[in-house]
Amino acid sequence: MAGNSFGGVFRITTFGESHGPGIGVVIDGCPAGLAIDSAFIASELGRRKPGQSAITTQRQESDGFKLLSGTYNGYSTGAPISLWIENTDQRPKDYADLEKVFRPGHADFTYLEKWGIRDPRGGGRSSARETAARVAGGAIAKLYLANFGIEILAYTHSIGPVPCPEGNYSAEAIEASPTRCPDPSSAREMEKLILQTQQTGDSLGGTVRCIAKGVPAGLGEPVFDRLEADLAKAMLSINATKGFEMGEGFALSAINGSQANDPMGLENGAPTLLTNRAGGVLGGISNGMPIWFTVAFK
Amino acid sequence: MAGNSFGGVFRITTFGESHGPGIGVVIDGCPAGLAIDSAFIASELGRRKPGQSAITTQRQESDGFKLLSGTYNGYSTGAPISLWIENTDQRPKDYADLEKVFRPGHADFTYLEKWGIRDPRGGGRSSARETAARVAGGAIAKLYLANFGIEILAYTHSIGPVPCPEGNYSAEAIEASPTRCPDPSSAREMEKLILQTQQTGDSLGGTVRCIAKGVPAGLGEPVFDRLEADLAKAMLSINATKGFEMGEGFALSAINGSQANDPMGLENGAPTLLTNRAGGVLGGISNGMPIWFTVAFK
Amino acid sequence: MAGNSFGGVFRITTFGESHGPGIGVVIDGCPAGLAIDSAFIASELGRRKPGQSAITTQRQESDGFKLLSGTYNGYSTGAPISLWIENTDQRPKDYADLEKVFRPGHADFTYLEKWGIRDPRGGGRSSARETAARVAGGAIAKLYLANFGIEILAYTHSIGPVPCPEGNYSAEAIEASPTRCPDPSSAREMEKLILQTQQTGDSLGGTVRCIAKGVPAGLGEPVFDRLEADLAKAMLSINATKGFEMGEGFALSAINGSQANDPMGLENGAPTLLTNRAGGVLGGISNGMPIWFTVAFK
Amino acid sequence: MAGNSFGGVFRITTFGESHGPGIGVVIDGCPAGLAIDSAFIASELGRRKPGQSAITTQRQESDGFKLLSGTYNGYSTGAPISLWIENTDQRPKDYADLEKVFRPGHADFTYLEKWGIRDPRGGGRSSARETAARVAGGAIAKLYLANFGIEILAYTHSIGPVPCPEGNYSAEAIEASPTRCPDPSSAREMEKLILQTQQTGDSLGGTVRCIAKGVPAGLGEPVFDRLEADLAKAMLSINATKGFEMGEGFALSAINGSQANDPMGLENGAPTLLTNRAGGVLGGISNGMPIWFTVAFK
Repeated sequence: MAGNSFGGVFRITTFGESHGPGIGVVIDGCPAGLAIDSAFIASELGRRKPGQSAITTQRQESDGFKLLSGTYNGYSTGAPISLWIENTDQRPKDYADLEKVFRPGHADFTYLEKWGIRDPRGGGRSSARETAARVAGGAIAKLYLANFGIEILAYTHSIGPVPCPEGNYSAEAIEASPTRCPDPSSAREMEKLILQTQQTGDSLGGTVRCIAKGVPAGLGEPVFDRLEADLAKAMLSINATKGFEMGEGFALSAINGSQANDPMGLENGAPTLLTNRAGGVLGGISNGMPIWFTVAFK
Repeated sequence: MAGNSFGGVFRITTFGESHGPGIGVVIDGCPAGLAIDSAFIASELGRRKPGQSAITTQRQESDGFKLLSGTYNGYSTGAPISLWIENTDQRPKDYADLEKVFRPGHADFTYLEKWGIRDPRGGGRSSARETAARVAGGAIAKLYLANFGIEILAYTHSIGPVPCPEGNYSAEAIEASPTRCPDPSSAREMEKLILQTQQTGDSLGGTVRCIAKGVPAGLGEPVFDRLEADLAKAMLSINATKGFEMGEGFALSAINGSQANDPMGLENGAPTLLTNRAGGVLGGISNGMPIWFTVAFK
Repeated sequence: MAGNSFGGVFRITTFGESHGPGIGVVIDGCPAGLAIDSAFIASELGRRKPGQSAITTQRQESDGFKLLSGTYNGYSTGAPISLWIENTDQRPKDYADLEKVFRPGHADFTYLEKWGIRDPRGGGRSSARETAARVAGGAIAKLYLANFGIEILAYTHSIGPVPCPEGNYSAEAIEASPTRCPDPSSAREMEKLILQTQQTGDSLGGTVRCIAKGVPAGLGEPVFDRLEADLAKAMLSINATKGFEMGEGFALSAINGSQANDPMGLENGAPTLLTNRAGGVLGGISNGMPIWFTVAFK
Repeated sequence: MAGNSFGGVFRITTFGESHGPGIGVVIDGCPAGLAIDSAFIASELGRRKPGQSAITTQRQESDGFKLLSGTYNGYSTGAPISLWIENTDQRPKDYADLEKVFRPGHADFTYLEKWGIRDPRGGGRSSARETAARVAGGAIAKLYLANFGIEILAYTHSIGPVPCPEGNYSAEAIEASPTRCPDPSSAREMEKLILQTQQTGDSLGGTVRCIAKGVPAGLGEPVFDRLEADLAKAMLSINATKGFEMGEGFALSAINGSQANDPMGLENGAPTLLTNRAGGVLGGISNGMPIWFTVAFK
């Protein structure tokens, strides 16, 4: 059954395997007349790329991309935009011995159960490389949303047992460390732990915090398509994710309603929320406060 | 924008307000020939109904329902099944004074922001009463899934700070307490806390654990429609939910990969998983182990 | 598989059988703040109702309806609007003998092949009565579109071999005859033929012409969701339809391209179309001219 | 709004412009384990290719294609299959003068109205070249359906005023003429007319007849997703189509019901249809007879 598309009005469809010729994305529904800034797309793909420092996955990936359709003279035309990111590190030989084993925590077993066929080249669609296609789609979404003053930030909120303190961090602070942890002291601790764990041949989980600023009130639908429901689906569709919290999330389940709800007050005569424990939503609809949520990766 | 339907092949559409004439659901895609056991639907609706004991919301609701379409002589025909649950406790007068205030943690504010119109009768679609329609749809799904040996259980995993110990609980143990907490000692503690909190005019959050047994390997799609992504969307679309964990969830983000992944072994010569920390999924696809997840409510 | 919904942003879901308790519709995505004129909905349902004159199907139907949800003080709230139309002419006994036969041209046979179960009460979902639910949904769409100066008319374009001459007819002329043929002389001929055919126990096919005036340029999508493709799907989803023509339709296939294409000229300096053989669309997108198409019924 | 996908369980998404670098398609939902016969895909693309004889569009197109994803060792894996067909005849200079004019019957005008931006390179998405991507998707569907004994044929049913006589034609007869008209005498007449018309700088419309043999009873949904509704949408989504007839189509609207309905009889004790005027559907569901329909092109 078709399951490689996400979104309604603005919809992405991704294709390609981690060790086939490349990875692609079709972005359907992008409004016409948007300046498609290739340098920005490249920089977003570059941020995702592994192998940038000693602490990340050492697999080499080139994330050079080709814009295959949907633009004319640098602007979107309303036609579907598609990008193709070639795999330069196609090493089928490395995977030959995988044809016979199931790697723990990898999808080899369930793929075989589901389809009765096995593509041993690096996990196929379940590889984290599939997210390169999402990053390309997200880059175009960011270009569009910037016109409305919407800014989206994400940073490393923990690596294994090492947390990043709560804070209001800038994009610059996030980019300053290869861990993408904006607190320098925590970042150093995380780096140290990652290097130690690599030496034992092991890996680490972590959490990511995401914040969307400038989102107007009124987005989301009240029942099945609540804003937090769509965000949860999007996040749990990423490889290796295991949990999602909207705003303070699970912590809100352990306290009284009087503490958990954000009180309202008046600001210049208009009703406004005085805190943002809920993460910027109320009844499934954005309330004008920053949207924030946290995602767990194993 | 239309947002009151959920599901693809088996799809429910809900309608109705908490304080209008009633709540309804259309179940589209139910296979023909299924015995539609009205007593079971009634018992499922009865389990949801508030006001069953001193510890639950005191609002009285009748959950008698009418089967409006889709069956003939007690069996589904392939036509859409629809149920209508009348509201017997329609008290618009109680809500007259709500026309002027925004209740903290309620959707009044965002509904007005979104639609520019306000239906003060009890929150309209954002009321927990909307879930009665989901329960009716879920009852029919359970009747169908029972044919495949699939059993779905859910229980109260915590109320405020009071946890229920991890365990393999039966449906009977869950039903034994009005808290739906299957551990008698924790249930007593929860009841005590609820009654205390009610006296202060406050409310409590909590978490719910859900387990689906007998799910075959191979369900779910590898990318956007991963099984855990669809479950997360479904759960976060319920009123007042703030978090979702697949299997051990956030705990898996704090440990090493070697501990977080479920090891595989051989059982009668066939590959099998030796633990189930992942919650029954691998790469977005069910792996034949029980599916389990936890949901936070504020 | 779920197949009882139509539309994206504005979506209707219909349910109910011709000889069950009634027929219903959920209208999801109607903007908030629309005055829901019940008298207009009733008049639209009244226009559809059989048994209004000697020449129509003699089955009695009451099309009184109940508004179950989605409005407050007469205005839409953004919540799904649902209507329920009770069947007053529920005669299961009349259909008892149908349990054993297949009526030619009815769906009894294919329904049994598809679902392996037979509801003998009047064809179930395949009955023309299902269209009452669509008329209710269409009435609300018309109320909304009227705000944009869009008017939708339909009339009988032929009955059996009797055509209605081409012309620019008013809503009043259409309503003047029970045949809904706006040309009085053709209408008389049609009535005569219908009465003659009824006496032989037979029925007649015909065609319907539909015109939408005031539709702005730019509606429709260029590839799969072309305006004419969506219209064709909508029309062929009506019981007993066998053909669809956009504008001059099949006639355009028999002539040269130079004749078939609508020439463009300038009107007050702006490019405009000088004829409308295409039916108001170009490349799948409305061109600002009236939309018109013809549908064949057996 | 996203509109470049078609289908539910088996879904294609097309992208690319006629005079950009190429045309692509993503086929999502193709079952795993299907032998992807590249030679067959190439031969299907070859059949579509213009410039094969004096009578077709003279534009040169190479329809060599690359399989970008979704297969391993020649078999589908369940991952999305994507194909890329390069444009070798990219002549932006030829189109430079189109930036200033609207060609009659082309979508230039409506595209500009819709998106406020103009890509003058050959009509972009509205070009007939977009259908190459559909042909690739259709080739894979044909490979799959062949496993169930389903064969799909299409032939030229008329060119301008020249008809092809009704008949039961073979694939070989269809391929024998560059007109794809299986009746040799009509084919000669059509060729003559096409050459004459070309000399005057004009073009011709025509109709296409399509037949699907071996389709089992029970496909299609009874209300909005009737088999004929989905076929009508698919056909009217093709560039330059203006009409659709299921079975005898409009002819059935001009006769009595007793003549229009296919009578049923018994064959070896099983109910069967004795004629197939309806085109293989009844109540929106396939009835086991060949599916047949006709499409008008301007």
